[in-house]
Amino acid sequence: MGAALDPFPSVLAFDVFGTVVDWYGSIEREVAAHGLGIDAGAFALAWRAGYEPAMARVRNGELGWTKIDALHRMILDELVERFGVGHRLDETARRALNLAWHRLDPWPDAIEGLRRLRKRFMLCTLSNGNLGLLADMAKRAGLPWDLILSAEVFRHYKPDPEAYLGVCDVFDIAPAQMMLVAAHHDDLAAARACGCRTAHVVRPREFGPTIARDVDPRPGNDLHATDLLDLARQLGC
Amino acid sequence: MGAALDPFPSVLAFDVFGTVVDWYGSIEREVAAHGLGIDAGAFALAWRAGYEPAMARVRNGELGWTKIDALHRMILDELVERFGVGHRLDETARRALNLAWHRLDPWPDAIEGLRRLRKRFMLCTLSNGNLGLLADMAKRAGLPWDLILSAEVFRHYKPDPEAYLGVCDVFDIAPAQMMLVAAHHDDLAAARACGCRTAHVVRPREFGPTIARDVDPRPGNDLHATDLLDLARQLGC
Repeated sequence: MGAALDPFPSVLAFDVFGTVVDWYGSIEREVAAHGLGIDAGAFALAWRAGYEPAMARVRNGELGWTKIDALHRMILDELVERFGVGHRLDETARRALNLAWHRLDPWPDAIEGLRRLRKRFMLCTLSNGNLGLLADMAKRAGLPWDLILSAEVFRHYKPDPEAYLGVCDVFDIAPAQMMLVAAHHDDLAAARACGCRTAHVVRPREFGPTIARDVDPRPGNDLHATDLLDLARQLGC
Repeated sequence: MGAALDPFPSVLAFDVFGTVVDWYGSIEREVAAHGLGIDAGAFALAWRAGYEPAMARVRNGELGWTKIDALHRMILDELVERFGVGHRLDETARRALNLAWHRLDPWPDAIEGLRRLRKRFMLCTLSNGNLGLLADMAKRAGLPWDLILSAEVFRHYKPDPEAYLGVCDVFDIAPAQMMLVAAHHDDLAAARACGCRTAHVVRPREFGPTIARDVDPRPGNDLHATDLLDLARQLGC
């Protein structure tokens, strides 16, 4: 399947939250560890749900450039009130909890899948997470990136085209030589619109055990993989 | 010596050309391999000598933001004429030779020194080299960076303060928690002026075997190291 790609991509750019790491399980665990007596899974989902609207405020100019760390904190401050635990989390506790997004665990296949893919391809991130967050996460989890790239470098959040084309500019390659690897259709569609290759990796439990995720192939993507080990096999690694 | 630092740095930011990798020896080798019958060492020195004036043209606004790859190419095109070999290097050959800067070899102590330092510190680059160049170099040589940062991210070449302060912003740390590791006094002085810690690593052969380099400690730097293994020892790694 992968062998039919012409030109064959030289750079694989990975979405991170949900595609490479399990944000739901990691955030649920960290929230539960605070012993606040709230539904930690619901809190994780609500925190993540605040992310798109927060980025939209940057995109529409209501906020100047703002890192995800700061957006996560704005959402957190609102959420602790909504969940009725604002009085139980002081500034120090909120700062510590906000850094939970720096400590997300990889999906079980991720490290070995990336390790195999890295032998043949240049591997980079293309995440809306900020550089410091991604570096902390990679160091803790041992994610073997060749280069950590972020919306922070391009000052544009995905799915703005500047993010995808920014990766191509960094590596001095044509869009067709870059393949985005992601679990999210809006991300994949935006990369395709820029002329990039796309690989859809399904993550049926991205939103936890109870919320069903679409795992069917969709037309338009070059590859459809069940995980990163399957992607490595399809790409001959 | 390092134990007296308060606050103790959490991030080590490395200059790369000359400090971590041997640009002179690597470029000399690549130029010699083209069999042009010119003094490859003199060519390497002239190429490097064109670098500061080229960055100055970006800094003073004569050129818009321009990556080092493009600056290296502008210098190369002028140099091949000066050395009388322009007619022997076509576009393909010039492109290939320009990428010699992506293939610089580390100094013999660098990989092991970085490997030790990485256990205790967040290691990043702070280089005027562009991101793609630094990623190619790290992948080829096995340089174990936690994060590759470049003037390209901050759109300011060192020694502009925006480069040093940009690293602190990425990691959300105070300048005193960042230590610049470099072989060049102008770089170290600019980092100190931003409130950062500094470690001077001497590289007596940076400009090849015949040009003497200042290797004496200078006041103001927090540490003075003979190589990266010595730096690791001084920092308790």
